[in-house]
Amino acid sequence: MIKVGIVGGTGYTGVELLRLLSQHPQAQIQAITSRKEAGLPVADMYPSLRGHVDLAFVTPDDAKLTECDVVFFATPHGVAMAQARELLAAGVKVIDLAADFRLKDTAVFEQWYGMAHTCPDLLAEAVYGLPEINREAIQKARLIGNPGCYPTSVQLGFAPLLQHKLIEPTHLIANCASGVSGAGRKAEVHTLFPESSDNFKAYGVKGHRHGPEINQQLRAIAGDDSVNCLFVPHLLPIIRGIHSTLYARLNSAGQAADLQAIFENAYRGERFVDVLPAGSAPETRSVRASNTVRIAVHRPQPDTVMVLVVEDNLTKGASGQAVQCMNLMCGLDEHLGLTGVPVLP
Amino acid sequence: MIKVGIVGGTGYTGVELLRLLSQHPQAQIQAITSRKEAGLPVADMYPSLRGHVDLAFVTPDDAKLTECDVVFFATPHGVAMAQARELLAAGVKVIDLAADFRLKDTAVFEQWYGMAHTCPDLLAEAVYGLPEINREAIQKARLIGNPGCYPTSVQLGFAPLLQHKLIEPTHLIANCASGVSGAGRKAEVHTLFPESSDNFKAYGVKGHRHGPEINQQLRAIAGDDSVNCLFVPHLLPIIRGIHSTLYARLNSAGQAADLQAIFENAYRGERFVDVLPAGSAPETRSVRASNTVRIAVHRPQPDTVMVLVVEDNLTKGASGQAVQCMNLMCGLDEHLGLTGVPVLP
Amino acid sequence: MIKVGIVGGTGYTGVELLRLLSQHPQAQIQAITSRKEAGLPVADMYPSLRGHVDLAFVTPDDAKLTECDVVFFATPHGVAMAQARELLAAGVKVIDLAADFRLKDTAVFEQWYGMAHTCPDLLAEAVYGLPEINREAIQKARLIGNPGCYPTSVQLGFAPLLQHKLIEPTHLIANCASGVSGAGRKAEVHTLFPESSDNFKAYGVKGHRHGPEINQQLRAIAGDDSVNCLFVPHLLPIIRGIHSTLYARLNSAGQAADLQAIFENAYRGERFVDVLPAGSAPETRSVRASNTVRIAVHRPQPDTVMVLVVEDNLTKGASGQAVQCMNLMCGLDEHLGLTGVPVLP
Amino acid sequence: MIKVGIVGGTGYTGVELLRLLSQHPQAQIQAITSRKEAGLPVADMYPSLRGHVDLAFVTPDDAKLTECDVVFFATPHGVAMAQARELLAAGVKVIDLAADFRLKDTAVFEQWYGMAHTCPDLLAEAVYGLPEINREAIQKARLIGNPGCYPTSVQLGFAPLLQHKLIEPTHLIANCASGVSGAGRKAEVHTLFPESSDNFKAYGVKGHRHGPEINQQLRAIAGDDSVNCLFVPHLLPIIRGIHSTLYARLNSAGQAADLQAIFENAYRGERFVDVLPAGSAPETRSVRASNTVRIAVHRPQPDTVMVLVVEDNLTKGASGQAVQCMNLMCGLDEHLGLTGVPVLP
Repeated sequence: MIKVGIVGGTGYTGVELLRLLSQHPQAQIQAITSRKEAGLPVADMYPSLRGHVDLAFVTPDDAKLTECDVVFFATPHGVAMAQARELLAAGVKVIDLAADFRLKDTAVFEQWYGMAHTCPDLLAEAVYGLPEINREAIQKARLIGNPGCYPTSVQLGFAPLLQHKLIEPTHLIANCASGVSGAGRKAEVHTLFPESSDNFKAYGVKGHRHGPEINQQLRAIAGDDSVNCLFVPHLLPIIRGIHSTLYARLNSAGQAADLQAIFENAYRGERFVDVLPAGSAPETRSVRASNTVRIAVHRPQPDTVMVLVVEDNLTKGASGQAVQCMNLMCGLDEHLGLTGVPVLP
Repeated sequence: MIKVGIVGGTGYTGVELLRLLSQHPQAQIQAITSRKEAGLPVADMYPSLRGHVDLAFVTPDDAKLTECDVVFFATPHGVAMAQARELLAAGVKVIDLAADFRLKDTAVFEQWYGMAHTCPDLLAEAVYGLPEINREAIQKARLIGNPGCYPTSVQLGFAPLLQHKLIEPTHLIANCASGVSGAGRKAEVHTLFPESSDNFKAYGVKGHRHGPEINQQLRAIAGDDSVNCLFVPHLLPIIRGIHSTLYARLNSAGQAADLQAIFENAYRGERFVDVLPAGSAPETRSVRASNTVRIAVHRPQPDTVMVLVVEDNLTKGASGQAVQCMNLMCGLDEHLGLTGVPVLP
Repeated sequence: MIKVGIVGGTGYTGVELLRLLSQHPQAQIQAITSRKEAGLPVADMYPSLRGHVDLAFVTPDDAKLTECDVVFFATPHGVAMAQARELLAAGVKVIDLAADFRLKDTAVFEQWYGMAHTCPDLLAEAVYGLPEINREAIQKARLIGNPGCYPTSVQLGFAPLLQHKLIEPTHLIANCASGVSGAGRKAEVHTLFPESSDNFKAYGVKGHRHGPEINQQLRAIAGDDSVNCLFVPHLLPIIRGIHSTLYARLNSAGQAADLQAIFENAYRGERFVDVLPAGSAPETRSVRASNTVRIAVHRPQPDTVMVLVVEDNLTKGASGQAVQCMNLMCGLDEHLGLTGVPVLP
Repeated sequence: MIKVGIVGGTGYTGVELLRLLSQHPQAQIQAITSRKEAGLPVADMYPSLRGHVDLAFVTPDDAKLTECDVVFFATPHGVAMAQARELLAAGVKVIDLAADFRLKDTAVFEQWYGMAHTCPDLLAEAVYGLPEINREAIQKARLIGNPGCYPTSVQLGFAPLLQHKLIEPTHLIANCASGVSGAGRKAEVHTLFPESSDNFKAYGVKGHRHGPEINQQLRAIAGDDSVNCLFVPHLLPIIRGIHSTLYARLNSAGQAADLQAIFENAYRGERFVDVLPAGSAPETRSVRASNTVRIAVHRPQPDTVMVLVVEDNLTKGASGQAVQCMNLMCGLDEHLGLTGVPVLP
């Protein structure tokens, strides 16, 4: 059994980790920390866990995290950075669901997250935790920067096109929409039900933190620093789910290619990436509460490709992906604890 | 033209007052106060008002409220209490949308609102602003305690039965459900979209502030202190709307009565109370954004009456009712500015 | 492995059966019938099942249902009645999710369902499939009438009070609200998104089919034909979930009783019934996609008991309960395939 | 007073016409036809209209439409085509809210709507009813093809850029999302609440009827047949509202231009088009139940323009626009009956 610790278990990625890990056949949750809620049984905050998780929140001091095999950080940005070194030194594997170990350029990190990066050496070592792109590195890693929710869907949608050099790299568009759980469980006015229900809008129109992450990764995938993607997020009145509508212009190779075959080949054998039949339009609900991404590729104009991608932002977009990384890092079957059927309707 | 001031215009009852008053043919909004947002154009906070309301928030000091004819308090509990005396002294009519002037017993007020009542003399003078029950007093009043959202629907549903003494008074049940806007525009976790969407629950199960208000008023309407109503609120994943399902046991007079006729007679001539045909079930959306209450009365068992009531909690349950009171206090046609057609779908 | 057949797998109880059975360690789905969709892969209709269910719909003739161990009917009323006899004769266990085998009085059935009952002998034999009430009979049964969604919650909420004779039996009130999936996957105007979203209403106010089922069962549970429950359903703008707010007057025994202890004792050892701590209000989302019922008992007035019950109408209210019955009938662990953690948020 | 007839008043554009016209100071509704619902009071179908619309549906034969000044067709495609000639001959102005008189090329019409066009002469005469583009022609018209909901927002968003020749015309992208009321009030499975709530998807990915309308109109606006726009609609879980995210590459003139000023100038004096301050992101709720379109223009990359547009699909996207056309055709103030404040929250 893998002994697991969770730092900061009160938010949505925390409760999703608990949902997944409490059903994982090879994981045992040792401790869940929350300074603010220490002493409170986890199931008092999340009654859905009654009968499934019997722990109470503990302070970080009481958590004995250095005795764990794996520690997840489901915390605000900056926390993992401060605590990872000690855990790694004790031989613990660390998976950060926040952004501390995603952006390789510390200047970019500081620009978008408003804080200095305090451990550039660990950042240099950290592996970006998107298994379908990075599997081997993850298997060997001891420190994972778990991908952002939007970047996961954008990368999986563009990767086959970039890897085969089928599109003009400089003007990619990622028109994305996320459910409100993506904003986290913070008390804020703009995500109140009366503000975000029966409503739709773009946001982050002056720039969003996931933009630099997307571009960093697409450039790495393409091996081409000219890649440039315009990322435009929108806020959907749904709880879970991200839908990305991706646009690019096909170069001559792309116009000659069988795009459907390319996507099917790219993800053959990937259990968590489902390439839909030609002509399909995936729905966010078709992956609700599951670790699966569904993708459809279209050529609506001779020189234009459109890729539609759906994922559950809390599962494949956050906690499910983190568990997938844990499985790889610990030498387990990659799919353990992640095979639940999506909940529809 | 009536010169109107609004204290605390940043919440949902504030913006609803602005929506209604900006279309009112005899009202002119002079000032909207907000200490926190002073200087901000109202339409920057509420883009729906762009082109309709051209004012900016001002500090209370700059608002010259004593020059208004009517001042509305769309503030947290306790604010009107502190400011009403000065305005009244200046000849201004005051309408408080919070609870400062609803509960006649200061001990009950202190128990439920956690603060001492600082002007019992004004409380004694204040008129409860439910026109269908209290019209004449409102016309003569200078200080109005505007009813709570739930109590409005419960009173209008039970009033004909109590006035005609058709029900056993001691075991009334008001099983009510409200849209989330009823909780106000405060940043709180439990009214976030991911918490209250696709969800339903009872709340306030240990007692809710509207309980004593309901009982005070039902007793007054009945002229019978034995009236006792169990009030159970639930939180609905809708923005606007209250639905009350009321139960009582009919006494022998009630069992012999033509309940449909009694309700139709009770509200004949009331433009804002619509008694539906026998057998109906009103929908909250049928009154969305309007000042109308719709009521259906049923006798599901020989000795049981069930009354179904819908209202828009922000309009007839708050700001619309306040404007209705203003019209009455100022000698205007009661319906001015309140005749908009509900928005369906 | 249990060989399972499903008749009529295109509706919401059908897809929920597929979700549960495809994850059940001891069940193997042999055939899913649909005359209309024969030949269509199930996952083409429900993309959530891609990678989990590999079958196509078949006609009843091709389904070889008599070779199954258990056959579920997820069909409109009347279908199971027509086909059960042949299956039973072949030694197949039958579980009907519709109403054909719920109401013991054929006259009542005909009144509410508008069709004659064609096999009263099987009806007499059929066992009502609510394990927490009826476990031993279910274990021995070969034909199950699976309970209605509302009646499940109402029975579990009132049962301890009736079994201990703590309430006046003649004026029970069940004020219930259901998500829209309860209306099924039929193309109808009143359940369109623009009709039922951002809206709330009572329905079935002249009487609902679950009323007689509730009363039949509460009388059986109490052993008292004077039990009478007023059942009032409401339509909630959520996908899944039923919330029941139950009211009754306590008799003198009830007023003296420790209601919390009575409920805790009644359901001790029941894995699918969770009695919440005193003072709680269960949320529908706390049981989303799970087979668990959560219950809170309150005494808001000295002589009044209020019970709050939540369930997922498609799981414990339909398909999950049917699988629970299957487990019992087949001698399996009752909880197999039903231990998934609720999906929250 | 303008005497108005409505053909086919049972759908969402019909009830929206009734909402607007019943509050219009210069319009009088003479008749509303529905073969199927003849005899039914309109307010029985739409209780929101109780007290506001006192008519019953009548058969077309009883409607005396030739005595009206204006007749609106809120019908399926093909109906106006069959009835317009007789009305026009009688001197009645005709406004078709369906697509019969939008597409100038009958072959294109037949391809997308699956029926032959039976009156090409009227089609040639018909005026496309988008006042901000076409005001003078509308004022003189007797037959209006009222624009589609999506095309209204796309045209208003691209028009200033095309008119000033600031963008490369061949690869425009219109990534749009509509509330479910856009699908009409037809009983269909895919727009049921449990299918479209808590969900998001693209649709019409093989081509949507509004695509050719958009391209026809953008070409006319630009005076350039090379204009080509890729139109991708998505289905939003909201009742009302369209959000369009428009992308284009700026040519050198466009890169040098002050886009904000160009938009402000283009719509200066247009009461129903609100250009937001630079940096804004309009929300669909900010125009709920109003005839206003709000637009924000962005330059997220030096050579890329992004325009965000919101409208209420039933008001400016359908019935409000039709009333605006009526006002123009009848020589009334263009804004009569259309100045209601959006309903927020």
